Amino acid sequence: MKPAYLEDLAPGQVFTSDARAVVDVASIKEIFRREFDRQPFHSGRGGRKADVLQELVASGWHTTAVTMQLIVETLPLSHGIIRSGVDGLRWPRPVRPGDTLHLHCEILAVTPSKLHPSRGIVRVRMTTFNQKDQPVQTMVADLLAFRRPEHAA
Amino acid sequence: MKPAYLEDLAPGQVFTSDARAVVDVASIKEIFRREFDRQPFHSGRGGRKADVLQELVASGWHTTAVTMQLIVETLPLSHGIIRSGVDGLRWPRPVRPGDTLHLHCEILAVTPSKLHPSRGIVRVRMTTFNQKDQPVQTMVADLLAFRRPEHAA
Repeated sequence: MKPAYLEDLAPGQVFTSDARAVVDVASIKEIFRREFDRQPFHSGRGGRKADVLQELVASGWHTTAVTMQLIVETLPLSHGIIRSGVDGLRWPRPVRPGDTLHLHCEILAVTPSKLHPSRGIVRVRMTTFNQKDQPVQTMVADLLAFRRPEHAA
Repeated sequence: MKPAYLEDLAPGQVFTSDARAVVDVASIKEIFRREFDRQPFHSGRGGRKADVLQELVASGWHTTAVTMQLIVETLPLSHGIIRSGVDGLRWPRPVRPGDTLHLHCEILAVTPSKLHPSRGIVRVRMTTFNQKDQPVQTMVADLLAFRRPEHAA
């Protein structure tokens, strides 16, 4: 990917992932259950939540982390993905074992910094879809972007 | 922990974690670099971001996932932690290797569902602090909560 600088970005631009990430049972059960989120509905053992979530689903934060992997592979910001904040994080549908996720990013706004002339904030709507093109996660993130250095092409 | 039902919760209530989670170098470098977020500033190898982040720091999503672990251990909601959304997610300070995180949760609002009489939404401000009691992450989450079943005490 050719690196994108602040002046290369404009509202309405869209970046979509070629990369697709599979959420497998092992990663739902092992990584997140063991490390972070020891709740029965991520381990397939049922429990008191059976009336709400009757199946094995990924933690919302698991979906978020997989999305981060897709963002890194999709958005070519020159200095990497450095967030200053996230709003409107929603999980409209559960992610299930075997789901394959892909990402759609739309630039909503580009705001040069008044304090730091070399940088600005890019507001991006990021929607994560499953293999049926149904949204499983939405968010709006503010990302740091940098101007092209003067000596660069 | 005694399970908390919708009618047990009220604005102003505070829950703080006894549990404290250490963010170690191995987990920053290995789990997140390998699995999710292959950016140089989480691997200690420097790179183009050196002018922005001059040290090894945890991914914001790593902090979020560690916070999830603390939430599960801190908030005694009867049916577990089931989010409907998150807003205002910010990382005011980096998390560094060796940092020990703890959690402060304040109930902001309790809204019974009109559609589902057995449940409601609890809005919670969650602040994750480091060992110097400096906030490293803030967010406001809407969580599902359930009324006490009639046959229960």
